[in-house]
Amino acid sequence: MKKSKEGKPVKGFTFSGVASGIKATGRKDIALIISYTPATVAGVFTKNSVKAAPVIWSQSVAKNGICRAIVVNSGNANACTGDRGKADTKEMASIVAKRVGCKLREVAVSSTGIIGVPLPMDKVRKGIEKGLQALSPACFSEAAEAIMTTDTFPKSSTVDIAVAGQKVRLTAMAKGSGMINPNMATMLAFIVTDVAITQPLLKEALAESAEFTFNRITVDGEMSTNDTAMILANGAAQNRLINKKGKDYNLFKDALLFLSADMAEKIIRDGEGATKFVKIGVKGAETDATALEVANKIANSSLVKTAIFGEDPNWGRIVSAAGSCKAKVYFDKIDLLIGTIPIISTGRPTGQADKGSVKKYLKKKDIAITLNLNLGKGEAEVLTTDLTYEYIRINSAYSS
Amino acid sequence: MKKSKEGKPVKGFTFSGVASGIKATGRKDIALIISYTPATVAGVFTKNSVKAAPVIWSQSVAKNGICRAIVVNSGNANACTGDRGKADTKEMASIVAKRVGCKLREVAVSSTGIIGVPLPMDKVRKGIEKGLQALSPACFSEAAEAIMTTDTFPKSSTVDIAVAGQKVRLTAMAKGSGMINPNMATMLAFIVTDVAITQPLLKEALAESAEFTFNRITVDGEMSTNDTAMILANGAAQNRLINKKGKDYNLFKDALLFLSADMAEKIIRDGEGATKFVKIGVKGAETDATALEVANKIANSSLVKTAIFGEDPNWGRIVSAAGSCKAKVYFDKIDLLIGTIPIISTGRPTGQADKGSVKKYLKKKDIAITLNLNLGKGEAEVLTTDLTYEYIRINSAYSS
Repeated sequence: MKKSKEGKPVKGFTFSGVASGIKATGRKDIALIISYTPATVAGVFTKNSVKAAPVIWSQSVAKNGICRAIVVNSGNANACTGDRGKADTKEMASIVAKRVGCKLREVAVSSTGIIGVPLPMDKVRKGIEKGLQALSPACFSEAAEAIMTTDTFPKSSTVDIAVAGQKVRLTAMAKGSGMINPNMATMLAFIVTDVAITQPLLKEALAESAEFTFNRITVDGEMSTNDTAMILANGAAQNRLINKKGKDYNLFKDALLFLSADMAEKIIRDGEGATKFVKIGVKGAETDATALEVANKIANSSLVKTAIFGEDPNWGRIVSAAGSCKAKVYFDKIDLLIGTIPIISTGRPTGQADKGSVKKYLKKKDIAITLNLNLGKGEAEVLTTDLTYEYIRINSAYSS
Repeated sequence: MKKSKEGKPVKGFTFSGVASGIKATGRKDIALIISYTPATVAGVFTKNSVKAAPVIWSQSVAKNGICRAIVVNSGNANACTGDRGKADTKEMASIVAKRVGCKLREVAVSSTGIIGVPLPMDKVRKGIEKGLQALSPACFSEAAEAIMTTDTFPKSSTVDIAVAGQKVRLTAMAKGSGMINPNMATMLAFIVTDVAITQPLLKEALAESAEFTFNRITVDGEMSTNDTAMILANGAAQNRLINKKGKDYNLFKDALLFLSADMAEKIIRDGEGATKFVKIGVKGAETDATALEVANKIANSSLVKTAIFGEDPNWGRIVSAAGSCKAKVYFDKIDLLIGTIPIISTGRPTGQADKGSVKKYLKKKDIAITLNLNLGKGEAEVLTTDLTYEYIRINSAYSS
């Protein structure tokens, strides 16, 4: 597996990213991803009851299993926009379908940005036309830039593998960066690959990868109306078709897991206002599910997050957050580590928390907190950020 | 029912609040509440699995049903302090019991402040002695001050009622002000009354009042290790004993509900860093429980809270938070009001959100948001604050 921390051209795909004027700043806001041939598609989507029109549309594309193109706009989520929003999504797909020469339901649509404001369709129409003119296999990075909202850098990554001697490439783009939470909070990720694989296996590989990557990150505990991760596999690599589980499938799944993990990590590193990249590991829970509950509770605790921002070894907040879960936590049994420094050992504070070594560790950008409940074998890891003045600034001034 | 927004002397009770040096600032940090005669007691306590030593102790006092005194320290939660914490709690009770001449288990103990640091018992011992010297029926406000942590003002309130012609008084003190969340996040409330009532009825009245007051407030979604609300009823009013449900009981319960609601409101008005007092009302849910789930989700949403801080009518965040609940929310059905201004009417934005009237309304300190799901008759109301720079400042600099 050859990894590269940037997007690269993939056989049979063409991309573009252009500015249509949806964003008042004049930044790129329309992205196109087009496969020359019908690609196998799979997707995972927000579990929010209130789903944006493009999410409902793209769910049906993923269900059909065949996709030729993805059209994305940033700056406006087309969420809570009623019948007009549905019509606008359909029109976006329609413009692309006509030019690509495919069925309407073979064009996926994604939108991200402010909720509840109808799309400025005159700009969107012209923007898509402009994007169709700008298509090029080399324009991956322009597309990755065009899907950004409050992101401070574009996120992409590539993996090359060999499937039965044939070179196969997967490349991914993603955007964050607030409203990130388990179950696909405002994030978009698009992965394209030239691998030949059946749709059920593509779907399974994506679902499994997403579960341990995109669904294990949280900035602020918010789950958005628009979250989407989709993968298109067009078979242009002409590898031996992956049609059963085994060596080839595992190779592909590992590559997809790596890409998804890398996107998830980049989203957290670019979390709104974040100054820290925080790994919360929970071990020794009764089940993986309870470990995940505890890890999420700690990761979403405003008091834990502000303590990390303040580089303050206030471990009581970690324990209190853990204890407030439905899952049982016995203080007498727990071990807590900040980095590799033991802070609590079977319920006894070690006295290390006040020492210089912990304070020095907390000055780093990457922080790991590990809680062992010592009850069983369940474990989970969640990535999060600290909670900062800058988060407040960004989010108290977002729409106005 | 005669209401007074301050604490007042209650027959048969004596109070004190003194500084022992637990708080580095030299502020008051030891409070005593003593009844001249054995009082009937009831309590509600944090549901956090990790309970501080004094919580476990006071639960057993409440279970026994008889209490002569409450001793409280602020500045240190005596939580996660192991066997030493248990011994320290017992010693605090013991010092008071000896001087009051009651059983050890008739003295309740409460602590609030930093977690995981052993109590400085030399200071605590001297502080309790000092408090015992300072006892006076008139010192209610000193006690109310001594239970404060990051509170910016003491919280107390009094209600006078007549039970079968006999004058009865209830008076309450409480502290917040961060880590406030449903199910008794870091808050303490102590209510004393001279009413004569049986213990089972006192317990029921407190549990019901707490459910709709202390358990309906949230600052940051945190549930603490130390939350406690206790009521002592010493019967000094010599009213006809309330020993069954009926007119007398209802009168008393209404008074207790008023007091609890007033304490809950004051805690929210003094929420850490808060600039706004926010009422989230959810109506038309399938059940009261789902209404409460939705109201809490909105109230704890960092994006909603920062929007309110920014006086930004970004209603998409409210809808997205509601939609991320387990409870079903159908956007097509909802009505949303900010104040009395309709923002969404059966799923259609009214266009009012961008108007000056909403922006003017959001400049007020008291904000009401009402969401009607139009699915059933369930309803709930939750009080919360905005999320501000000041919250970050307070909590990133708390212990260090």
